[in-house]
Amino acid sequence: MKLLEPMFRWDAVEALVGDAARLQGMLDFEAALARAEAKAGVITAAAAAAIAASCRAELLDAAQIARAAAGAGNVAIPLVRELTAIVEKRDAEAARFVHWGATSQDAIDTGFVLQLRAVFGHVDAELERLGDALAALAEKHRGTPTVARTWMQQALPTTFGLKAAGWLDATDRQRDRLEALRAVALVLQFGGAAGTLAALGTKGMEVARALGEELDLAVPAVPWHAHRDRMVEVAAWFGSLAGTLGKIARDVALLMQTEVAEAFEPAGEARGGSSTMPHKRNPVSSAAALAAATRVPGLVGTMLSAMVQENERGLGGWQAEWETLPEIIGLTAGALHHLTNAIAGLEVDAAKMAENIELTHGLIFSEAAQMALGPALGRLAAHDLVQAATTRAKTEQRHLRDVLADDPAVTRHVSKADLTRLFDPAQYLGSAQQMIDAVLGAHAAGSHSARSGGS
Amino acid sequence: MKLLEPMFRWDAVEALVGDAARLQGMLDFEAALARAEAKAGVITAAAAAAIAASCRAELLDAAQIARAAAGAGNVAIPLVRELTAIVEKRDAEAARFVHWGATSQDAIDTGFVLQLRAVFGHVDAELERLGDALAALAEKHRGTPTVARTWMQQALPTTFGLKAAGWLDATDRQRDRLEALRAVALVLQFGGAAGTLAALGTKGMEVARALGEELDLAVPAVPWHAHRDRMVEVAAWFGSLAGTLGKIARDVALLMQTEVAEAFEPAGEARGGSSTMPHKRNPVSSAAALAAATRVPGLVGTMLSAMVQENERGLGGWQAEWETLPEIIGLTAGALHHLTNAIAGLEVDAAKMAENIELTHGLIFSEAAQMALGPALGRLAAHDLVQAATTRAKTEQRHLRDVLADDPAVTRHVSKADLTRLFDPAQYLGSAQQMIDAVLGAHAAGSHSARSGGS
Amino acid sequence: MKLLEPMFRWDAVEALVGDAARLQGMLDFEAALARAEAKAGVITAAAAAAIAASCRAELLDAAQIARAAAGAGNVAIPLVRELTAIVEKRDAEAARFVHWGATSQDAIDTGFVLQLRAVFGHVDAELERLGDALAALAEKHRGTPTVARTWMQQALPTTFGLKAAGWLDATDRQRDRLEALRAVALVLQFGGAAGTLAALGTKGMEVARALGEELDLAVPAVPWHAHRDRMVEVAAWFGSLAGTLGKIARDVALLMQTEVAEAFEPAGEARGGSSTMPHKRNPVSSAAALAAATRVPGLVGTMLSAMVQENERGLGGWQAEWETLPEIIGLTAGALHHLTNAIAGLEVDAAKMAENIELTHGLIFSEAAQMALGPALGRLAAHDLVQAATTRAKTEQRHLRDVLADDPAVTRHVSKADLTRLFDPAQYLGSAQQMIDAVLGAHAAGSHSARSGGS
Amino acid sequence: MKLLEPMFRWDAVEALVGDAARLQGMLDFEAALARAEAKAGVITAAAAAAIAASCRAELLDAAQIARAAAGAGNVAIPLVRELTAIVEKRDAEAARFVHWGATSQDAIDTGFVLQLRAVFGHVDAELERLGDALAALAEKHRGTPTVARTWMQQALPTTFGLKAAGWLDATDRQRDRLEALRAVALVLQFGGAAGTLAALGTKGMEVARALGEELDLAVPAVPWHAHRDRMVEVAAWFGSLAGTLGKIARDVALLMQTEVAEAFEPAGEARGGSSTMPHKRNPVSSAAALAAATRVPGLVGTMLSAMVQENERGLGGWQAEWETLPEIIGLTAGALHHLTNAIAGLEVDAAKMAENIELTHGLIFSEAAQMALGPALGRLAAHDLVQAATTRAKTEQRHLRDVLADDPAVTRHVSKADLTRLFDPAQYLGSAQQMIDAVLGAHAAGSHSARSGGS
Repeated sequence: MKLLEPMFRWDAVEALVGDAARLQGMLDFEAALARAEAKAGVITAAAAAAIAASCRAELLDAAQIARAAAGAGNVAIPLVRELTAIVEKRDAEAARFVHWGATSQDAIDTGFVLQLRAVFGHVDAELERLGDALAALAEKHRGTPTVARTWMQQALPTTFGLKAAGWLDATDRQRDRLEALRAVALVLQFGGAAGTLAALGTKGMEVARALGEELDLAVPAVPWHAHRDRMVEVAAWFGSLAGTLGKIARDVALLMQTEVAEAFEPAGEARGGSSTMPHKRNPVSSAAALAAATRVPGLVGTMLSAMVQENERGLGGWQAEWETLPEIIGLTAGALHHLTNAIAGLEVDAAKMAENIELTHGLIFSEAAQMALGPALGRLAAHDLVQAATTRAKTEQRHLRDVLADDPAVTRHVSKADLTRLFDPAQYLGSAQQMIDAVLGAHAAGSHSARSGGS
Repeated sequence: MKLLEPMFRWDAVEALVGDAARLQGMLDFEAALARAEAKAGVITAAAAAAIAASCRAELLDAAQIARAAAGAGNVAIPLVRELTAIVEKRDAEAARFVHWGATSQDAIDTGFVLQLRAVFGHVDAELERLGDALAALAEKHRGTPTVARTWMQQALPTTFGLKAAGWLDATDRQRDRLEALRAVALVLQFGGAAGTLAALGTKGMEVARALGEELDLAVPAVPWHAHRDRMVEVAAWFGSLAGTLGKIARDVALLMQTEVAEAFEPAGEARGGSSTMPHKRNPVSSAAALAAATRVPGLVGTMLSAMVQENERGLGGWQAEWETLPEIIGLTAGALHHLTNAIAGLEVDAAKMAENIELTHGLIFSEAAQMALGPALGRLAAHDLVQAATTRAKTEQRHLRDVLADDPAVTRHVSKADLTRLFDPAQYLGSAQQMIDAVLGAHAAGSHSARSGGS
Repeated sequence: MKLLEPMFRWDAVEALVGDAARLQGMLDFEAALARAEAKAGVITAAAAAAIAASCRAELLDAAQIARAAAGAGNVAIPLVRELTAIVEKRDAEAARFVHWGATSQDAIDTGFVLQLRAVFGHVDAELERLGDALAALAEKHRGTPTVARTWMQQALPTTFGLKAAGWLDATDRQRDRLEALRAVALVLQFGGAAGTLAALGTKGMEVARALGEELDLAVPAVPWHAHRDRMVEVAAWFGSLAGTLGKIARDVALLMQTEVAEAFEPAGEARGGSSTMPHKRNPVSSAAALAAATRVPGLVGTMLSAMVQENERGLGGWQAEWETLPEIIGLTAGALHHLTNAIAGLEVDAAKMAENIELTHGLIFSEAAQMALGPALGRLAAHDLVQAATTRAKTEQRHLRDVLADDPAVTRHVSKADLTRLFDPAQYLGSAQQMIDAVLGAHAAGSHSARSGGS
Repeated sequence: MKLLEPMFRWDAVEALVGDAARLQGMLDFEAALARAEAKAGVITAAAAAAIAASCRAELLDAAQIARAAAGAGNVAIPLVRELTAIVEKRDAEAARFVHWGATSQDAIDTGFVLQLRAVFGHVDAELERLGDALAALAEKHRGTPTVARTWMQQALPTTFGLKAAGWLDATDRQRDRLEALRAVALVLQFGGAAGTLAALGTKGMEVARALGEELDLAVPAVPWHAHRDRMVEVAAWFGSLAGTLGKIARDVALLMQTEVAEAFEPAGEARGGSSTMPHKRNPVSSAAALAAATRVPGLVGTMLSAMVQENERGLGGWQAEWETLPEIIGLTAGALHHLTNAIAGLEVDAAKMAENIELTHGLIFSEAAQMALGPALGRLAAHDLVQAATTRAKTEQRHLRDVLADDPAVTRHVSKADLTRLFDPAQYLGSAQQMIDAVLGAHAAGSHSARSGGS
């Protein structure tokens, strides 16, 4: 285990993008290739069986493959060599057909696509868990008044449920995208050394189709060896997800500030505490998500830079992907997992939220006051009157409500109770409830179209 | 005109992402908002008419807005102020309803979405032009032998048509994605100062729906002020496109090398020539596309970094998008336009391709020879024989064909004509024709499913 | 003026990296080249005079150069052509010697180096202004208690002066680096078409030295056409400066939060205010600096990516620099200028700082209490006693001081006055004053060695 | 060993940035802290001895620290806890003084600085090895004619030695920078929880100075917890080095192309070969360097993005550095090591270089011809005559020399021998030898000033 792994990663996904999974992914390709070629009559069923039976990562000497890869230029060459030796012990004739007609990149890319499929499953389930936790917050706090902040300044009242609904809608959009990503990314790579499948003579496409079926992967019209837009789309999706998670984490960290203190990551044994600073409750999960949101953008940029690959197989660009894409996935999945845990246990302090609403002594209600007094006083008069009262409230450091209560122009038309109600945040929430309903409805339905609009 | 604009940009798109278009986009939002509010009975039809009639960029003092924006923090605030003054001259009452219930970000984001829609139209048409040019190359050169290169080394024979088909398939995938992108990106932003539409009382969603209809934009469940995944998806798509274009450009530049000389950007008056170096033909369009492919990844990374936006409206992150996304679009569209021109006039030297195939004195055919001699000599014997001949050919610097022709083990089974045929690249192309057919068929059909696989 | 320019840029520097400055930079190279060649006897003094007299940007048709550059591949080719035509009108013979022996990149790179020198002067002066403003804050508030925050949580007491001293030290380090950068970056580019100065026969180095003297630039051992580490160092320095500015801006924005309210950007006509939200005071300058800190990293990454330039002159990489480096400079200089203005007028609320120190009801003093009670109670007893009191304070929501005052084990040894003093932040500041002195001393001395340590 | 490690990394440096080195770096800090505090009379010599004796990484349970770090938020907290337990077994009293007065970041940052120092040593030595190998190439091939290429097109003659000298000068500049970097980066981090060293009372600076002496690190005026420019400078230097290496690698890969074939990475057992494609010689080391040059820029961007750290200790930004900077170092050091091996064994084919010079049939000599015929024919006449001959040579596909030899206007003044000499690349090399001398001289002297100019 790497020292920083538990802090930034999710072990379930880490296993899927690690070295053993990488080797097994390639072996799964080799096994399926042998079976497909047997189906197409290119090799014998016996050879295919011998090859397939040998395609188990634990039979390989990973350290030896790693060393040999440095000279060979990729891991598939020594892997095929080792595999061939293993098959040979079983069936010398079969050994001649290991990797038949394929090129290293066919094994490496397809193997990685198989890893991706497993990753997608885990990430999708975790996104669902995050969405459900957010939906619960949105529902529970749909009426909990809090203050909306823009430019890191208090702006106007809103509800904590609407804030959570905003987080949820973004999370669900990412999940919708993941669905679409499967069709793009879960595609076979198979072209042979020159991308023509020449070594298979006239049987190339037949083998390709059988191989696609074996692996349950779509078969593209043409190999995509040096065209990396599929992998870039995977990277960009994870990058966008990391950004969404980072945004939520930033919000949580801001809410956890000592001076704000409105919501908190769950406490736990040795989570974010400090023995010398007993008042602290560090947003440890948010920090992990923010670190990921800081790191992943540059890695996605790398994937984009690496797209400029030469001719039929690139030099430098393709190699640059090998560790970068797993890193993107690992960091983002880690952020997802840690943040989901934090959101699932988020502690919300509604009383403190209410208290903070009062910090500006009613000034965040000046727009509300203006709108509310309009009908009684006339729109223009209401505007001017509130502006003046606002200035007085700031200068005299009094509550805007009290300043207004002192003004006969106000009290002539508005009762004290009505005036008090003006400064009730629940009275100035506009369409917040409808918005929350729309988000929760779409989440419950799992419906993409509801999410992206199109009502 | 900026000094480097014609070199890197496409004027048609540059106009759509420029300052005037930005102002007009916001004004289109303001006009539509007024009309929608009139429809919902929030303001009078007269006020809406007065406002809408004033929403023309040429009426504004852009320099004054620019100056004022520095203090205000965004351009919408001074724009609304200027617009209000203009409306006031027309109808003082109407002036009070300019921007009614909206926040700056509503105008800025929605305005940009409207710009995006226009950009998408142009870019889609240019992608079609590029695709058609590539399809023509793929068709014309479907049988033109050339050498596939991996690691920047000659590998095996292929056809230039298959290379073009690979470029085409990638281009068409990008076009498919653009189609999907419309649904994600062409969405209204409308939430008011706190994202609740509070200033519109109970009429918020009604106005939102009417506004969406006015602008023909989808209405989201909840405003997306601080959730930027939509814009990031736009950025990532352009980034991926820039990568695809850069890959094609790199290939063209490699083919244009003096020592390779297989394909050339079209010559033209003062295009890439040099008076002191008359033999040069510089790949000027490819350079523009490669420069874009170098620049755009970092900009996409910026968009991802900028996603971590605070609370209900970010500080720094949102502002970072304002010039970055137009830059991404402008550079990519420029690369697309320049490269499309280059591809549309690409000069292909099939004779030189044939000549280059001979550079290794037959060694690139050693796999082919092995496969072809197999039936006659037995697979293992063929393998060993060709390996030995290959070594001799390299040592003696002779053509592999001649070395084989000297070998009685070969001539016993293979006629001279058959031997010659072995070294005909057209005989070792595997499934190239089927692949080209599949790509061209999908291009002609415009069919996404054919592209991503799913046979 | 571009719409967003005043918000993000500093006009003084913008002028130095703009199109006119770019053209004049190249013309200054051409004029100096002619003079140097006359000095070396390569061309006549008369020719040099005619050329030098024509090297004025206002004589050129910039739009025509821009258009022609798109075909030529760089701006120097059409510029030289235009310049030649201008010289020709003056002196037909001289016209033949325009740009004599040079290549486009010589003019473009050296011209940019000349622009850089002017930029460095402005930026250095502004860094001095920022440093002086920070030094004044550090001095004035050297004893102003405030709370240090880690993980965005209150940690322990510090002084606002120490915070300012930290900002200052970082700013001064950047200024030190700028000094070193001059030697690296202010270097002539001069190699002719192949980097050998072949067209000047045996006089190449003599002309190079004279040219270096003319322009007051160092002459490198060998041209650096395709080796871009000098320009990358410039980019990286600006990138690091943008980060330092972003860090200060983030701190200011955090301090300006409604709930924290400890320091504020200066108010001004129409600066960061909102008519509908009269309580808001948006950190507009900080937002500009944060936007720059978000944008510049990706651009520096682009400069690094662009280093991989082919052979004796790159294709795509060099072109990618042309707009990127000026963008890096413009954004960072803008951030510097805006933030300097904000810091120079920063309003500090020492009373609110003192108030915020009390928010945890003494808990941020628990380490201090432990240390202070140690001598009286014994170290271990003090530790256990304070831990217990801390827990009680949290549970009972009382001030730690009051909990301790209730404890006979404490009052037996410590007077009420001493207990009160324990919770005086001024009593727990460690080496803060010495640190402030060290930073201010180094700032006053302008001494690098003092800054980087080594006392 | 990670699967891709030998391909991309250098084991010697990998060990220095790995987990064990990270733990030991922190332990070295803790040991030195104890000794420094004993020296300053803060703790007893016995306590210091007990602590120092326990500071050995092999005593720790790294996996347990890794797990605990996830909850604690950094690795120093559980490390200190484990260390304390270990010391306790030795000396219970001493255990209370482990990490006395320090904060986690003091240990983490200083520990990493210690790792850096070791890395710098290795990298400097390898840079020297690379420089020496390049100097040998520059010397040996100072007169080997080859063609300079711009825009990936043949331009004019140069020598391979000058190309190598350009690589060398860039490499030596990077080495000069490394020297300067030591002063910036090898600096103590020590400030305690709030950056004031408050827990050490009046002894803070005394301990700091003693600690600096213990570790042989400079002591800064003020802690730099949230000011990360030092680490960013380290990152940027490695980034620039990766770019320089990538540029050299790209050149090597271009020269190794089948069609160019002028220089080759050394062959070796299983290096870059292919059994099915016996003619291939893949540039495996160059690919590693190019992959690094593709990956490192985004990582440097991450370090820059991460500079925006909050208050006295950041949240997300600092954490983002922990794996990123070691990754930058590891990838760049790997590229350096692999490329140095390739350059040290580079095979140069001077005959093929001479052959390639002839590819344009003399056209790359048209500038040379013009210059050479000038004295005999008059400058203008020479220019026009060569232009016309050039056109004829291209149209008729003849050698420019033969076209000129047919022209009586030429033969009247120029003998056949002189005409032949015109097309001798050795006659048109300008200042190449002086440049090579200057670079080699500076390399031999190790002198910075000679490198950056200023002669």
